[in-house]
Amino acid sequence: MSSSRVITLKSIGVVRTKPKSKHEEEKWKTSVSKILIYEEFTEALKGLSDFSHIYVIFLMHRVSSEQRKLLQVHPRGEESLPLVGVFATRSPLRPNPIGLTLVELISVKGNVLTVRGLDAFDGTPVLDIKPYSFSEMVKEAKFPEWVKILQGKEKAI
Amino acid sequence: MSSSRVITLKSIGVVRTKPKSKHEEEKWKTSVSKILIYEEFTEALKGLSDFSHIYVIFLMHRVSSEQRKLLQVHPRGEESLPLVGVFATRSPLRPNPIGLTLVELISVKGNVLTVRGLDAFDGTPVLDIKPYSFSEMVKEAKFPEWVKILQGKEKAI
Repeated sequence: MSSSRVITLKSIGVVRTKPKSKHEEEKWKTSVSKILIYEEFTEALKGLSDFSHIYVIFLMHRVSSEQRKLLQVHPRGEESLPLVGVFATRSPLRPNPIGLTLVELISVKGNVLTVRGLDAFDGTPVLDIKPYSFSEMVKEAKFPEWVKILQGKEKAI
Repeated sequence: MSSSRVITLKSIGVVRTKPKSKHEEEKWKTSVSKILIYEEFTEALKGLSDFSHIYVIFLMHRVSSEQRKLLQVHPRGEESLPLVGVFATRSPLRPNPIGLTLVELISVKGNVLTVRGLDAFDGTPVLDIKPYSFSEMVKEAKFPEWVKILQGKEKAI
């Protein structure tokens, strides 16, 4: 791979949350986490608390370089579901293990955000915070059959 | 800033679109672009065409290191709107100039995606592609007053 494709970023904060057991990982949707934004960026949070929902963009830092090479997966590891490309799933196993999660913003106090629904481990480096936008409320979106099966089981894609 | 905060990623593709004049940049929402995924990742696109909407995560590569230092902006440069933190806006000026745009997926042909609504220039490095999820359809989201003012003018936040 050409070196011109290399992109260097720096984390702007870190996730602080209680370690979860394998069983509890299913409960991300309701779990509360904190995001500690590095103090030099505190000013960049002004006005954020007026939003009820924000995107957290983070690095899934536990994904190994070997796991980044995987190009197709069974969604949520369920072999009864079709093998699809990682770009068609939200699997952490992907060339750039960037996490994108829309969370409920509970509070902003100084440089600490408290959020509900963040599926990131303690110590996860945070890359960016963005507010949710009206335009992301897509009522007419279409999904493949396997997404509907997972939704029936209340599992994320 | 500590060097331990450095994160290295590699682009997985590039945006191909007609150069736009300043005036035309307002028309992103309807403009059609192509995303050329590097061939080694073509397999990772399997099943993507079953989704009508996808997120494109990209690097806003024209943002200078000086512009990355800006922590507060007037949304869309409108000085009549309040000065808010960059994390409370979708401004390209931010510590990590990562772009996140939900687009309509028109087609997938081999390693080429055709999409509608991508606000990225020709040559933009693409970091990740993710499908839209049911859970991102947040009907009860709350927004600050300035977002509603911009929405009235049909401008993105």
